[in-house]
Amino acid sequence: MYTVYGDIQSGNCYKIKLLLNMLGEEHNWQHVDILKGESRTEDFLAKNPVGKIPLLAFTNGQYLAESNAILNYLADGTAFLPDNRFQRALVLQWQFFEQYSHEPYIATARYINKYLGMPAEKKAEFEGKQEGGHRALRVMETQLEKSTFLIGDQFTIADISLYGYTHVADEGGFDLGAYPAISSWLDRVANLDGYISMADAA
Amino acid sequence: MYTVYGDIQSGNCYKIKLLLNMLGEEHNWQHVDILKGESRTEDFLAKNPVGKIPLLAFTNGQYLAESNAILNYLADGTAFLPDNRFQRALVLQWQFFEQYSHEPYIATARYINKYLGMPAEKKAEFEGKQEGGHRALRVMETQLEKSTFLIGDQFTIADISLYGYTHVADEGGFDLGAYPAISSWLDRVANLDGYISMADAA
Repeated sequence: MYTVYGDIQSGNCYKIKLLLNMLGEEHNWQHVDILKGESRTEDFLAKNPVGKIPLLAFTNGQYLAESNAILNYLADGTAFLPDNRFQRALVLQWQFFEQYSHEPYIATARYINKYLGMPAEKKAEFEGKQEGGHRALRVMETQLEKSTFLIGDQFTIADISLYGYTHVADEGGFDLGAYPAISSWLDRVANLDGYISMADAA
Repeated sequence: MYTVYGDIQSGNCYKIKLLLNMLGEEHNWQHVDILKGESRTEDFLAKNPVGKIPLLAFTNGQYLAESNAILNYLADGTAFLPDNRFQRALVLQWQFFEQYSHEPYIATARYINKYLGMPAEKKAEFEGKQEGGHRALRVMETQLEKSTFLIGDQFTIADISLYGYTHVADEGGFDLGAYPAISSWLDRVANLDGYISMADAA
């Protein structure tokens, strides 16, 4: 049985919970409090030298880090990851977009607001994240005006990756009211079999 | 035949050239000058709404963005991407590490220095990138003290992804003298069949 080291309020960790729940895969969840430095202890760094969560632990003592690498591993051979070579590459295209052009803006703004409680010295950084976040949301909106899910009619781990922080983007100061296609897509995801909300998973 | 839109001095674009050369795959290379805004024109945004290079164009009119997604597509079914499910996930782990914990520090510092010519107003940002860059290099050094290539004895696209900006990290102010395992690995990569340097590819 897998053990996931994570914090369910982190979009990157919640992604893993969401897929495991949709797969009906039993697992242990080991809470890691990053604000208490629990991802930077000697013990944790021996498991993941990068010092980040989520981390997937296998019963044979192996570990796998990076949320989107974990999703690809878990989804391999399931309906959540297409067999088609080009479609699999499109899934990765969206996942790399998420980590480079979406998460650093939307998740970081949310972190400053929700985790750190918007301290005065972080206000400028928070505001500096807004433009890039909206740029990422516009890219998603344009795609979701054209297709049911990010790579077409099929729900894939690309959707899980982008759902993670998009569905709580309001906590980073992003009003999704201006993005009707994203809003409809969020509703579609929340109605899928095996869906579990962050609140219910906590 | 593929067309690659890119700038060979960009590590993200050079990765694609390196793999295509190692695969012996003929291709067209279409230079895009980002400083002249060529990745933000209406024409280019129609190809890639994110407005970034590299971009892979297929003869059937499809496009694929994100350097590491392109590498996975091109390497599929070749010796550069293992068949084993866990090893493939490790390749992705390193590639997501590269885009989140390596590139934003090392590539950005290099960009400020090499592309922008280190303007005074960017000096603080440049210096702010040094600690994170060295943290990423230490993670690589620790792994390369233990294995020939990043995921073991086999050279994979994980190595290509990390080679892209690591081999020019000095242009971002990072002295690799303190990283003997990385330095040996750089030499090993440069001696592989089909290797082409940034200078020779230009």
